[in-house]
Amino acid sequence: MEPRTSVIDKRLDAIDRIIAVASGKGGVGKSLVASALALSLAKKGYKVGLLDLDLYGPSSHIILGATKLFPKEENGLIPPIVHGIKFMSIVFFTEEKPSPFRGIDITNIILELLAITQWGRLDYLIIDMPPGIGDETLDVMRFIKKSEFLVVTIPSKVAMGAVHKLLVLLKELKRPVLGVLENMVMNDSSSIKKEVQALKLPYLGKVKFDDNLEAAIGDPNLLSTTTFMKELEGIIKKMRL
Amino acid sequence: MEPRTSVIDKRLDAIDRIIAVASGKGGVGKSLVASALALSLAKKGYKVGLLDLDLYGPSSHIILGATKLFPKEENGLIPPIVHGIKFMSIVFFTEEKPSPFRGIDITNIILELLAITQWGRLDYLIIDMPPGIGDETLDVMRFIKKSEFLVVTIPSKVAMGAVHKLLVLLKELKRPVLGVLENMVMNDSSSIKKEVQALKLPYLGKVKFDDNLEAAIGDPNLLSTTTFMKELEGIIKKMRL
Repeated sequence: MEPRTSVIDKRLDAIDRIIAVASGKGGVGKSLVASALALSLAKKGYKVGLLDLDLYGPSSHIILGATKLFPKEENGLIPPIVHGIKFMSIVFFTEEKPSPFRGIDITNIILELLAITQWGRLDYLIIDMPPGIGDETLDVMRFIKKSEFLVVTIPSKVAMGAVHKLLVLLKELKRPVLGVLENMVMNDSSSIKKEVQALKLPYLGKVKFDDNLEAAIGDPNLLSTTTFMKELEGIIKKMRL
Repeated sequence: MEPRTSVIDKRLDAIDRIIAVASGKGGVGKSLVASALALSLAKKGYKVGLLDLDLYGPSSHIILGATKLFPKEENGLIPPIVHGIKFMSIVFFTEEKPSPFRGIDITNIILELLAITQWGRLDYLIIDMPPGIGDETLDVMRFIKKSEFLVVTIPSKVAMGAVHKLLVLLKELKRPVLGVLENMVMNDSSSIKKEVQALKLPYLGKVKFDDNLEAAIGDPNLLSTTTFMKELEGIIKKMRL
């Protein structure tokens, strides 16, 4: 057994719930959903952490406007606090340089990040997962045993093809699925809803495409006032977190 | 040296140009650009191959409506022909089941696919690359020495953050970049253009967001009549292929 995994279990011990925001497909707004979910829960008074594990394209720090922060070292790493959220990201270690990690390195980096971060007591740790069902996704499933999955898709045949695979994998591995959120919706089709329900998984509802969202990237206060955030909060209610 | 790499060199020997359609970010329309580029070149009378290497979310077969085909075995694998394109995809081997390959397996699968496919003589081989700068992207760079890169982005800070990394990596590795295409454009901003030009790379222009595109997924004849295709052909001209 990898000795770090017992360290990881201890590090995550004081966290009530771990919610992994995932998608089979990139570009569906997964990072925005993860960041906005963390912001919303923090605003309600919960103790919230956000961990960006999207090693190839970390973006939560851009969304939160947290581009000048760095964790503090003290018996491990203490995450900086951004808009009430304890925030850790792989980007702190790659400094925006290209980071073409190869298979085994990815596992090591995730293990290291999980082993050294001092989250303390949290009600929720939100994980911004990498897209797809590659190494990182499998590693997170393996190392973070109590993670529950919020799956994000968009209403497109191509995206849902990939998301379908992720959902089948989560079912096969018997991991808890909180539900599927349909993002960037522009019309009234119910095909995604039907496909999710056919898999006997909870369909959480639609979030409409919001033209004003791009302007709110980097500005959490503005993000909180968007239609996107309002609709997401309706979905959070349905998740009964 | 891996013995298969010399086999691969031989297999690709009769191909004039290899164009890798890549993006640092998923969900930017990379697969659509790759499929439409292959369709457009085939229509002009060129001998064209399309290879879908997006192992976590292969979608070219969905876009081309080629969901019932399979390659023929004859001293290797002979790609089926779809709308005049020789077509190979990892999906032929995964049969839509979840395929959570781990690091080393990915390399093996790509090597195998490249070593066994009988492309014959081609003017162009278009490769639908996986998103990001992960293992598969690095492997393709390593095994397909003469690939030139067409990079796809969308006008979003988050997407361009990831695409920037890919562009820096391509420059560092001295790989030829045909240019950057800005997809799904909804307004007149020139920020992506400026960022690409600051890297001293060719900016190829914009393709507007096309609301009718989703309906053309799976129907290449319909796809050929879209605004998306018309605008893409303007960009192909600029690339002087």
